Amino acid sequence: MSNNINERVVKLRDYLRKNGLAAFIFPSTDPHQGEYVPEHWQTRKWISGFDGSAGTAVVTLSDAALWTDSRYFIAAEQQLQGTPFCLMKDGLPETPSIEEWLTNIIHNSQPIVHNESGEAMANGQRSMVNEQTVGIDGSVFTPAEIEELEAALSQAGIKLRTDLDPAEELWTDRPPIPKNKVEIQPLELAGESAESKIERVRQALRDHSKFNFQNSKADEAGVASGSILISQLDEIAWLLNLRGSDVHCNPVFVSYVLLTQNDVTLFIDSEKLDDNVKNYLNKIGVRVKPYGEFQTLSISPLKGEDKAQKASPLRGGLVGSFKSIKNPAEIAGFRRAMVRDGVAMVKFLHWLKPAVEAGGQTEISIDKKLTALRAEQDLYRGLSFDTIAAYGPHGAIVHYEATPETDAVLEPKGLLLLDSGAQYQDGTTDITRTIALGPLTDEERLDYTLVLKGHIRLALTRFPDGISGTQIDALARYAMWQHGINYGHGTGHGVGSYLCVHEGPHQIRHTWKPAPLHAGMTVTNEPGIYRQGKHGVRIENTMLIVEDGETEFGRFLRLEPLTLCPIDLTPVLWDMMTPEEVAYLEAYHKKVYDELSPYLTEEERRNLTSPLPAPPLGECPITETTNN
Amino acid sequence: MSNNINERVVKLRDYLRKNGLAAFIFPSTDPHQGEYVPEHWQTRKWISGFDGSAGTAVVTLSDAALWTDSRYFIAAEQQLQGTPFCLMKDGLPETPSIEEWLTNIIHNSQPIVHNESGEAMANGQRSMVNEQTVGIDGSVFTPAEIEELEAALSQAGIKLRTDLDPAEELWTDRPPIPKNKVEIQPLELAGESAESKIERVRQALRDHSKFNFQNSKADEAGVASGSILISQLDEIAWLLNLRGSDVHCNPVFVSYVLLTQNDVTLFIDSEKLDDNVKNYLNKIGVRVKPYGEFQTLSISPLKGEDKAQKASPLRGGLVGSFKSIKNPAEIAGFRRAMVRDGVAMVKFLHWLKPAVEAGGQTEISIDKKLTALRAEQDLYRGLSFDTIAAYGPHGAIVHYEATPETDAVLEPKGLLLLDSGAQYQDGTTDITRTIALGPLTDEERLDYTLVLKGHIRLALTRFPDGISGTQIDALARYAMWQHGINYGHGTGHGVGSYLCVHEGPHQIRHTWKPAPLHAGMTVTNEPGIYRQGKHGVRIENTMLIVEDGETEFGRFLRLEPLTLCPIDLTPVLWDMMTPEEVAYLEAYHKKVYDELSPYLTEEERRNLTSPLPAPPLGECPITETTNN
Repeated sequence: MSNNINERVVKLRDYLRKNGLAAFIFPSTDPHQGEYVPEHWQTRKWISGFDGSAGTAVVTLSDAALWTDSRYFIAAEQQLQGTPFCLMKDGLPETPSIEEWLTNIIHNSQPIVHNESGEAMANGQRSMVNEQTVGIDGSVFTPAEIEELEAALSQAGIKLRTDLDPAEELWTDRPPIPKNKVEIQPLELAGESAESKIERVRQALRDHSKFNFQNSKADEAGVASGSILISQLDEIAWLLNLRGSDVHCNPVFVSYVLLTQNDVTLFIDSEKLDDNVKNYLNKIGVRVKPYGEFQTLSISPLKGEDKAQKASPLRGGLVGSFKSIKNPAEIAGFRRAMVRDGVAMVKFLHWLKPAVEAGGQTEISIDKKLTALRAEQDLYRGLSFDTIAAYGPHGAIVHYEATPETDAVLEPKGLLLLDSGAQYQDGTTDITRTIALGPLTDEERLDYTLVLKGHIRLALTRFPDGISGTQIDALARYAMWQHGINYGHGTGHGVGSYLCVHEGPHQIRHTWKPAPLHAGMTVTNEPGIYRQGKHGVRIENTMLIVEDGETEFGRFLRLEPLTLCPIDLTPVLWDMMTPEEVAYLEAYHKKVYDELSPYLTEEERRNLTSPLPAPPLGECPITETTNN
Repeated sequence: MSNNINERVVKLRDYLRKNGLAAFIFPSTDPHQGEYVPEHWQTRKWISGFDGSAGTAVVTLSDAALWTDSRYFIAAEQQLQGTPFCLMKDGLPETPSIEEWLTNIIHNSQPIVHNESGEAMANGQRSMVNEQTVGIDGSVFTPAEIEELEAALSQAGIKLRTDLDPAEELWTDRPPIPKNKVEIQPLELAGESAESKIERVRQALRDHSKFNFQNSKADEAGVASGSILISQLDEIAWLLNLRGSDVHCNPVFVSYVLLTQNDVTLFIDSEKLDDNVKNYLNKIGVRVKPYGEFQTLSISPLKGEDKAQKASPLRGGLVGSFKSIKNPAEIAGFRRAMVRDGVAMVKFLHWLKPAVEAGGQTEISIDKKLTALRAEQDLYRGLSFDTIAAYGPHGAIVHYEATPETDAVLEPKGLLLLDSGAQYQDGTTDITRTIALGPLTDEERLDYTLVLKGHIRLALTRFPDGISGTQIDALARYAMWQHGINYGHGTGHGVGSYLCVHEGPHQIRHTWKPAPLHAGMTVTNEPGIYRQGKHGVRIENTMLIVEDGETEFGRFLRLEPLTLCPIDLTPVLWDMMTPEEVAYLEAYHKKVYDELSPYLTEEERRNLTSPLPAPPLGECPITETTNN
């Protein structure tokens, strides 16, 4: 690998010289701001060899460096070995920003030469750097990112060129942009016609530009005010009631939309559209243009729009805000999908413990089993993300994905953390269960109980309409904080309706997320505890935000669980649970039983290996069912 | 009044014409960003007659308008009656921003003529507006505010002029800038010498400008990097270990400081400095220059600094961040001051109920009594804010201040909300108690109990070092949210060490306050419930943030009450209290008793009218002491 990387960097430097550039920046993003980047746009991985989900590679004529965050310090160190890239640890106080580093290199004031490549790049050659222009592929940055980068570099007298893509020329076996077929999401599942959605967006743009009579940038660009450019693929899919399969685990298709007060234009490779879809688009008044033609649009309107969006209460994405509120048909779809997903989960849990006791099961083998059980369900379309099946110490690695090298054999002891979900045509699922495979340590039971208490506390919270998720995040942490424990990830994210499993704009998170919570939004509830080298615990249900009455102090909301699957009660330290928490578990398990039992065999119902309390629930307190 | 206002507006318009201005903006701020604005700078009140704490007046050649927020809609409506000012209700969707309104007026596109003044300002005169320049007194805005205003107006082709102060010419009886004497805060109370503080600030500026090698704006202005301009009066007082009395309730003095790596210059009227202070300043190497000379400094370095601060982790004020962490001497001072303040409060509470029963006591009379009891205490220097003594329905008005017109007679029933505090030379206090003067309604008891539960929950919370106060704000609200109740103000603010009672940069607040919480900070804990026309409840202690151990998950903190004063237990609905909450009250009241009883008479101790549980506390549960 590292030989390839060295070769690519040498070729890139030739390219830089040819184009009068001092450096090139490769981010981890694509033109559509998605979480999963199609291989075609994985240029940062191609140039540096580093394959983490977050990272930026920068190559100058003399130096090369890669920035990534603490999740990837160890992996990046290994993967960059023997390459010209030195690792820049994002978030540490001594780490310069990309702009600072570039300024230093380009102005030759503090030559950074550690971890330099073997190639004979003498200091003398630095004097060739006189153009002082840095290149990026502008299409894979947001306008705001470009503006920020431009401003930071211009302070140091460095120009930015945004119209080059060296990978197009140098990456000989570059994978093409995906060209999978587009499908129509039926109106009975989408719950609202594309025409209606388009009209709502237009109305919001009109309302919202009421005072923007001086938006000169948009005027200059010849784009009437009240227009919007949409590059996020899930927003396009939602708006047009279409789905695709261009991106791993996400039913979206590569495209852009330009929506004005009069027209809607879809920029897409027409190979992806069959006659049925073409007729549909024609019927709803959407013009189709080639995907590549989008790049010929001036970038100015994008900037104008972005500015307008920044100034607006809809900041964070107008279409995204609409999409986040699920309509009754979407909610009904979620409920049906959750029953099927819950049935698959219960069948899996029923199978799991005997299988582990029989021996030979591994993280990868159980992932296959679970996926197969989901695939048997109606309207199954694939996974919504790569399953995290993390046994024992692997549970402490938040972004763990089992590989043949790490694949652990499950034994009848300790905790298995299982975070998984599926795409069904009527809803997307996301569930985490942590399962006791046998005897546990006291620490495992304590951690499990504290996570469960946090999960329940958040589920029991009534809160005012419109507050930010940041304001309720601590409620899921309170119990563990009292024990000096915390977790580094957010507590919840939106979930799409047969769309992306991570959906904005709202989150329940310790860092600031201003997007308000409203009824109709989905949001996960997933506190966790991770002890390095020992175990991980996370308990996650996907929740629906519902109305909970109006008082003289305003409207209130609460979270209702959509996910239907028993929570393992064997690890719970019951002395630490309040009667209110026990009552919540009773009610939740009764609901799970009522909803799922019609689809389970007598044996699955009666002899559940996971302690879903047996048939109609008995009296409090819930105790472990020990019939396995 | 309104005649005066009309006359002033007419004169101001002459002034505008003479200076080629289309409009002038009068904010509610002064050059030092203080909460209380000395009368000299109350130009918005002078031009408009509106005396609320927040509001901006704008006068054009044809129109006049005043923006204020919902707290003041009713008062502003009354006060603007008969003046040329129309009220602009900030925060309502239909209300234009000042920039939008000005753009409309100046470009004459949407003449706003409602509530126009009586004076003969014909439409024809609008055409005189061709200079398209708006004026402000730049010294009363922050550089960031000026930059923002400039940007917004320039989009509409309007220029901003910042070097004019029409009040200087037109306000004939304008009060002078206060010239009260400056005093030295003794080292044993300040806990750190001014030299040491100055050196810490310099070091931080050096560390922090490490990568700012391209701060061209600061360079242009001839101010070496590593310099800072300080305009906030409490920051200056803290830095130099000086105190003053220029601002109501705040022991500060009007001045500026320019701190560079080599010099410290204090811009101040030298009349305020006696020989002792002059010698002190000389000894610690601080140069003194006339206050007025500050204005001759170019404003550019301010902008440069502001930019640097924005980009830095110390955002929110470097000196303010240092000041917010109290040193051991300051903490010891707080503890002593709290004992004296608690003694005054207990003597007051002992006096209160019999006095109310005897009749004739009012909000104002009890305020006088309480102030007199505080004034008897050692090191008393004045109030830290105007007492809020709000009886019955007045308690629901969050910013209530009794006037002779509103002054309510107290009766032996219902709730009295009493929010008060003092300046002692060794510490500033801020305490709210809500007191049952006799029988209560069920709603009053419920609200009281929910506020108390919120107050205790926050006080019991262990939380990670360095999180924002926004992350724990909801813990004080959880109990009332479950009953569909909420409050609109923040839950806590910092308190100065013989400085401002509202001190940043941290807060515990529902809106986002990024400043991290650290050990050594003071913060109030003051949830509340307000029912319009009925009553208000607030319970507030000033707390100290203290270390609470380090685990593998990091350092943890908790809040320790500094305030020492019993909490009225007669309204509490004990069925709603958890054993943990009752135990907290027991321990708190035991601490109050232990700390205060040496300074109380036998009678005050034994026969407390507020139910401070009698001598050494008995067994749980605490019940009402009914010996009055």
